[in-house]
Amino acid sequence: MSVQRMKIGCAGLGRMGKRHALNFLQRTPRAELVAASTPDPVELEWGKQNLEPYGVRLYQNYDDMLKHEGLEAVVVASATAVHAEQAIKAINANKHVLCEKPLSTSVEVSQSVVDAASKKPHLKVMCGFSRRFDSSYRDAYNKMQAGIIGAPSILRSQTCDKLDPSGFFVAYAQFSGGIFVDCSIHDIDLTLWFFGAESKVKTVSAVGNTAVEPDLRKHNDRDNAVGLVEFHDGKIAYFYASRMMAAGQEDTTEIIGTKGKLAVNTQPQMNLVNVSDASGVRREIPQTYWDRFEHAFVTEANEFTEAVLEDKPLALQLSAAVQAVRIGAALQEAMISGKKISFDLSGNRVEAARL
Amino acid sequence: MSVQRMKIGCAGLGRMGKRHALNFLQRTPRAELVAASTPDPVELEWGKQNLEPYGVRLYQNYDDMLKHEGLEAVVVASATAVHAEQAIKAINANKHVLCEKPLSTSVEVSQSVVDAASKKPHLKVMCGFSRRFDSSYRDAYNKMQAGIIGAPSILRSQTCDKLDPSGFFVAYAQFSGGIFVDCSIHDIDLTLWFFGAESKVKTVSAVGNTAVEPDLRKHNDRDNAVGLVEFHDGKIAYFYASRMMAAGQEDTTEIIGTKGKLAVNTQPQMNLVNVSDASGVRREIPQTYWDRFEHAFVTEANEFTEAVLEDKPLALQLSAAVQAVRIGAALQEAMISGKKISFDLSGNRVEAARL
Amino acid sequence: MSVQRMKIGCAGLGRMGKRHALNFLQRTPRAELVAASTPDPVELEWGKQNLEPYGVRLYQNYDDMLKHEGLEAVVVASATAVHAEQAIKAINANKHVLCEKPLSTSVEVSQSVVDAASKKPHLKVMCGFSRRFDSSYRDAYNKMQAGIIGAPSILRSQTCDKLDPSGFFVAYAQFSGGIFVDCSIHDIDLTLWFFGAESKVKTVSAVGNTAVEPDLRKHNDRDNAVGLVEFHDGKIAYFYASRMMAAGQEDTTEIIGTKGKLAVNTQPQMNLVNVSDASGVRREIPQTYWDRFEHAFVTEANEFTEAVLEDKPLALQLSAAVQAVRIGAALQEAMISGKKISFDLSGNRVEAARL
Amino acid sequence: MSVQRMKIGCAGLGRMGKRHALNFLQRTPRAELVAASTPDPVELEWGKQNLEPYGVRLYQNYDDMLKHEGLEAVVVASATAVHAEQAIKAINANKHVLCEKPLSTSVEVSQSVVDAASKKPHLKVMCGFSRRFDSSYRDAYNKMQAGIIGAPSILRSQTCDKLDPSGFFVAYAQFSGGIFVDCSIHDIDLTLWFFGAESKVKTVSAVGNTAVEPDLRKHNDRDNAVGLVEFHDGKIAYFYASRMMAAGQEDTTEIIGTKGKLAVNTQPQMNLVNVSDASGVRREIPQTYWDRFEHAFVTEANEFTEAVLEDKPLALQLSAAVQAVRIGAALQEAMISGKKISFDLSGNRVEAARL
Repeated sequence: MSVQRMKIGCAGLGRMGKRHALNFLQRTPRAELVAASTPDPVELEWGKQNLEPYGVRLYQNYDDMLKHEGLEAVVVASATAVHAEQAIKAINANKHVLCEKPLSTSVEVSQSVVDAASKKPHLKVMCGFSRRFDSSYRDAYNKMQAGIIGAPSILRSQTCDKLDPSGFFVAYAQFSGGIFVDCSIHDIDLTLWFFGAESKVKTVSAVGNTAVEPDLRKHNDRDNAVGLVEFHDGKIAYFYASRMMAAGQEDTTEIIGTKGKLAVNTQPQMNLVNVSDASGVRREIPQTYWDRFEHAFVTEANEFTEAVLEDKPLALQLSAAVQAVRIGAALQEAMISGKKISFDLSGNRVEAARL
Repeated sequence: MSVQRMKIGCAGLGRMGKRHALNFLQRTPRAELVAASTPDPVELEWGKQNLEPYGVRLYQNYDDMLKHEGLEAVVVASATAVHAEQAIKAINANKHVLCEKPLSTSVEVSQSVVDAASKKPHLKVMCGFSRRFDSSYRDAYNKMQAGIIGAPSILRSQTCDKLDPSGFFVAYAQFSGGIFVDCSIHDIDLTLWFFGAESKVKTVSAVGNTAVEPDLRKHNDRDNAVGLVEFHDGKIAYFYASRMMAAGQEDTTEIIGTKGKLAVNTQPQMNLVNVSDASGVRREIPQTYWDRFEHAFVTEANEFTEAVLEDKPLALQLSAAVQAVRIGAALQEAMISGKKISFDLSGNRVEAARL
Repeated sequence: MSVQRMKIGCAGLGRMGKRHALNFLQRTPRAELVAASTPDPVELEWGKQNLEPYGVRLYQNYDDMLKHEGLEAVVVASATAVHAEQAIKAINANKHVLCEKPLSTSVEVSQSVVDAASKKPHLKVMCGFSRRFDSSYRDAYNKMQAGIIGAPSILRSQTCDKLDPSGFFVAYAQFSGGIFVDCSIHDIDLTLWFFGAESKVKTVSAVGNTAVEPDLRKHNDRDNAVGLVEFHDGKIAYFYASRMMAAGQEDTTEIIGTKGKLAVNTQPQMNLVNVSDASGVRREIPQTYWDRFEHAFVTEANEFTEAVLEDKPLALQLSAAVQAVRIGAALQEAMISGKKISFDLSGNRVEAARL
Repeated sequence: MSVQRMKIGCAGLGRMGKRHALNFLQRTPRAELVAASTPDPVELEWGKQNLEPYGVRLYQNYDDMLKHEGLEAVVVASATAVHAEQAIKAINANKHVLCEKPLSTSVEVSQSVVDAASKKPHLKVMCGFSRRFDSSYRDAYNKMQAGIIGAPSILRSQTCDKLDPSGFFVAYAQFSGGIFVDCSIHDIDLTLWFFGAESKVKTVSAVGNTAVEPDLRKHNDRDNAVGLVEFHDGKIAYFYASRMMAAGQEDTTEIIGTKGKLAVNTQPQMNLVNVSDASGVRREIPQTYWDRFEHAFVTEANEFTEAVLEDKPLALQLSAAVQAVRIGAALQEAMISGKKISFDLSGNRVEAARL
């Protein structure tokens, strides 16, 4: 008897594409990376060096890859702009889909993926919010579910990147959907996870500044932003996103309940080393979200594979990904317009005049 | 040659009054506590046991104490409702004044103390924002001034009390000015210190809930609140205040600059003990703000005394105390009304229609 | 072009055998687990469920596995008592060998493996001291090599297991070589790594007690032990080993130099979660060395494979493994005899009379 | 009714003398510093500036101070060489005595103080082991007494000074009694406290090196030392002392029991500030034992005063101070001679031949 493995293809071999491809190739025992596609010649060359020798077929064209003999699933790790299109094509071709976040920076486009998926209920379609697969967040979630903090009432969460002196994020801002959609989307997703997907937003407020990159204003973006989300059931979430951390990646979350508090990563650390010298005691911290979440991505790949092979439920619903974009976009709008935005219980906007 | 000591009287012998009285009696070498006043018989009895044997004269009536032979200064540590009145009487009687925070929960009344003091420029009149005297905050401030975090841009600060199961804070809410004036006032003062007293508020937004004490709504208050303050120069401060911490007092501040971050008390601790047992590794944390700031109050008493005796500048300007109440009251209003409030550069409100 | 992979067999499918087998099967891309052997029917059944479906051939007899067509390497993960014998057989059969620690609890038997390996210089033969592959220890080592702590002078290291209430370690004590050979061997190996393999022991002293398991005395063992090693160049290492930690595994190391200190894992933690509740702030810690060093074992498997395939030097010399057993055995003897033991620069014992 | 205060004189106004004098003057409400003595003109001048204005009478001659009208107690804070002589003179003059540690570097001389005190049972005579008054150590002790770590079995403790580049400690070594008597004496005292004063030493072993100051060998001393103490009841204590810490003072203690562990100051810190910059996250640590134990000295002064005024038992027995010197001196001898030293249950040495 030989083991059953899921045949998967990887769309895109950029920064995240390479990682997903290698994860499915080397660290997902029940998956078999059979194909990868990219229109980019440099990425293609990387594939020739790193994937082809292991039997992975390379395609320049995504549509061709979808026709790969026996292909069962696709991980969409291309540019955000084509996430939704590629995901929908895969769904229509009857492939299971693991799509990098966000589905789209547009709520409507994001919803179109959900609509496509809803017509193929036998397919597993998931948006890859990696923190849902992180062992620390899971431990916190399980402890909350076990009741040790009483009723969760307040969630504080931040996604703060180390300053990239190349300023890449300035150019990227025109595609990113803005700092709340690009960075805080993870914190928003955590909120929907910890507070429950059924949580209804009542109001959003936000402010931001450009402490290091004034040019971001050209794209209606900021390099530091704080957002405040109030839910109809009284719960509150507040977020901080930044592009200018000096020491490294600082992704921290606290869930405060009536009987206790769960804190995740309030003291970031790269590893278990402390250095004492004349300046004091010092530790280094993760430089990127990959340093912090590498193992979560591996777990994601393995769990997606298992869900497909054994028809198990996915760790998160696709609709949550749309809701996260919706909240992120509202925060971005609140920040840029300077206005507080309100919603009724059905999710429709309430005019300021009616407040 | 014998040392010169400042003769001071203490108004009020309640929770804070006792502490101030003992600090000036026992831990402020250059001060001499000569008098104390309280209309409360229980407090008076405490004074007889603990102050009189050391030569402190007790008064039932504040006005009588002001006439105490040789009295040079007064520490006002009575109920908030009479802070301003007693401070102004002392100023008019040519006494130096250290007044517990807040001057008043009303901006106008607070301002009246400043007005009285401005007519007596030879007097030292200070509002006791104890964190300004805390060694950790001072170290952080000095490091910021030395430039090690570049330009400060974002300040996060929280004042979170351990849940008092007696619910005292519910009854107190009718006098407290609300959670932002009672708790966040410290975080607001820190903001004015770290960002500079000249910082001009542009907008405030706030939300709150009653996770443990719905009765607070009767007094237009909440037990958890998050506030967002945007300054005209682009700086941002955001605050969290809570009445329901399970483990103890959690007063934490982060100042984020373009080149680094200063964090104060992100890992609270009662002492230096860690306990390992079957549940993991555990430390206890301060139970009250006194556990956390006891030594800051001692420093405050000593520095106030030195400023009086040597005519040195005070650590903080009285006007900052009014500005802190102004911001706290605006946050409280924003929370209760659900509206974002805007100010122009002169500090006048901007109508929503003009936004 | 297809990738070259190293064909490896796993001897033993007990606790560590299972882990090594799965690591080579699933987490070592350039290795191919082709065979496994165990005389134990339960272990064999586990292999049928977990290895055979992936094409791994199972053997009841180790000698038969050595004849497996194309086998290039063996990971010896059987009982300590047969480590040396199986390693030597593999060497003689021209296989590369990764042998679990220790080679043997006997210095002489350990040396026999080195002797066998020295006759086959083309083979890669390594003893698996997993901490050499741990990212934190490596970071510390690199920092020390970069000179940031000046000259390393003192090393403190401990290997402390969570109390196993089954008392397995009591029965195991008759085979383990004693607590210094079983537990401190890792700390000794770290010492030889950080201080240099050429370090010459001058004296060893040790004491121990049986705080929880007096029965250990039957096997001349203890459940807590402290050892002191002095080197001829003046460097000092001291070790603590314990079987009774309440919270979990506590493997901590400090390297103290003339200009600084490197500390590894002085604050153990299972993950990045902190829980605040009425008892304070708490974190869980790793329960076993596997929780702590899982990723180090994966790195070990990958680096061993790479060394074989590309004829690269191994991360540690086989002779260091003999030296570690030598020091561990001397500490154990010092603890049981109550005598301090001295060595000359050639490693020969110095009689007490000559001290 | 006026409060009763204890009239105390301070012998010595050197580094520690100044501190004790100011503590009794300013931070010990129930004590009255009435006199101080020092033969040193510079110290005397300091006294004129800092003590005389508060009514403290200065003496050049200790014997003269003992005759000060109404003097009830003496704090001996002079050079170690005269501790015992001055303490005995004070006892004979019927004064209560708080003597800085150690009573003497000689066991016999230390014992002579105990002998003198035993003839005056109405006097309070205490050796100032400041850690006994530290709130963290007390919390740990109380938790141990409450049984939360089961039976204490192992104690690890270290006293590690920041490197003093002036090399003062080299010249001081001829008077200090050696690193175990000068530094580890605190750890030894803690051991006698946590394990019980009745603990009987079975063996001591020790090694040391001169990593930064080879000149210490002239005085039979070392700059780093590790000592191992085994008690007849099986308990074990091990100590590390160092003169070369790069970051500051690192005084750490762990008490390991059969059901848990108490750790004191395993993560030293100067205050609650953390700095994040490009090098990671950093905190400063105490630079001296005064930074670490300042408040313990204040508590010591207050409790000694209270014991005298209210005839309450002292926090520690004088005999423990002799036992601590005895163990420290044995460790020093073991380090210098290279020999393990054994004692029988009566505290007599056992010849090596009889081991």
